[in-house]
Amino acid sequence: MPQVRVESFTISLDGYGAGPDQDLSHPLGVGGEALHGWALATRTFQKHLFGSDGGEAGIDDDYAARGFHNVGAWILGRNMFGPVRGPWPDDRWRGWWGDNPVYRVPVFVLTNHDRPPLVMEGGTTFHFVTEGAAVALERALAAAAGRDVRVGGGVNVIQQYLRLRLIDELHVAIAPVLLGRGERLFDGVDLHALGYTCTKHEASARATHVVLTRQ
Amino acid sequence: MPQVRVESFTISLDGYGAGPDQDLSHPLGVGGEALHGWALATRTFQKHLFGSDGGEAGIDDDYAARGFHNVGAWILGRNMFGPVRGPWPDDRWRGWWGDNPVYRVPVFVLTNHDRPPLVMEGGTTFHFVTEGAAVALERALAAAAGRDVRVGGGVNVIQQYLRLRLIDELHVAIAPVLLGRGERLFDGVDLHALGYTCTKHEASARATHVVLTRQ
Repeated sequence: MPQVRVESFTISLDGYGAGPDQDLSHPLGVGGEALHGWALATRTFQKHLFGSDGGEAGIDDDYAARGFHNVGAWILGRNMFGPVRGPWPDDRWRGWWGDNPVYRVPVFVLTNHDRPPLVMEGGTTFHFVTEGAAVALERALAAAAGRDVRVGGGVNVIQQYLRLRLIDELHVAIAPVLLGRGERLFDGVDLHALGYTCTKHEASARATHVVLTRQ
Repeated sequence: MPQVRVESFTISLDGYGAGPDQDLSHPLGVGGEALHGWALATRTFQKHLFGSDGGEAGIDDDYAARGFHNVGAWILGRNMFGPVRGPWPDDRWRGWWGDNPVYRVPVFVLTNHDRPPLVMEGGTTFHFVTEGAAVALERALAAAAGRDVRVGGGVNVIQQYLRLRLIDELHVAIAPVLLGRGERLFDGVDLHALGYTCTKHEASARATHVVLTRQ
């Protein structure tokens, strides 16, 4: 059975998955980049993001790598795709990731504003879905053709899928930083009542990694 | 300078310092005991709570032990002292900890309802303070006579002292459990704006330990 997974989603010690005041120069909100120190240091992210052979092996890299394993499609929220809000003024915004995005599979972007599919280099096509989270997942599962679907975020999108009990497993990294404000991953989501438990728990020098599994 | 410290305060992965529905049989709220697995396994807690020579050494025990080092007085919220709410019906409630409580120093209990001091065995005296958090701290510092003051909790009391910027250092343990509901330690407290940063971060098999320090 294909799984629906959240991977390498990082929160601060005070629970925020993004900082406040997101804009073009702060895609993760003010202070939000500090969340991702653990990921940027890994071989996996160095390779996927920068085509570099640098980066470290170890616990952090093991978690980063599993996030790209057997993923046949992604789902992203519109705010994660870009800073444009409201109707698309034109088709110029093509994501944060350049001409050859890291995904290399179909990516379904949840939005209220339709737009034609955007075919990028390297296998990534952005599909814009206006029919809601459940429909986006159906389409993603079909596109993944037996492989898993990774729900990339942001916070609001993950919360929608958690409340629908559609996530099989979440890997959450807890970074040793305090953001103070922003979007809390677990606000208004009672994971205990939804049937999730922590099935794995280990830490590196840069983050604590936990895996939450639906029973 | 004596420090004002929070020690061994445990939260769940979803940020709760106590579960919902506290009562006499659930002093930490429903599910709240699961937070303290790491602490109960330590030598320090086995000795302080049960007079036992059992328990484990290691990271967890190092943190448990530092929590009792150089502490000259404690501050507790009234709900941590007991389940009685509103005016004291009589003086029969003497805390959760038997005739010889673990504190062995003066303990200042924040309450809206005055009550004479309660002298216990072993050096613990419970003083009931109705003049608020700042006054309780003054009295605790005076009683501690140069040693530190440990703010024991619960969540609401720690939040009061954090907002007043009166806590020098917090050791928070993050237990690999999900409570889903309850009291969140960091709700309505912007630790970043208050000037706190994470100065230490390490994990055992049972918990992640972080130290937050006021700059």
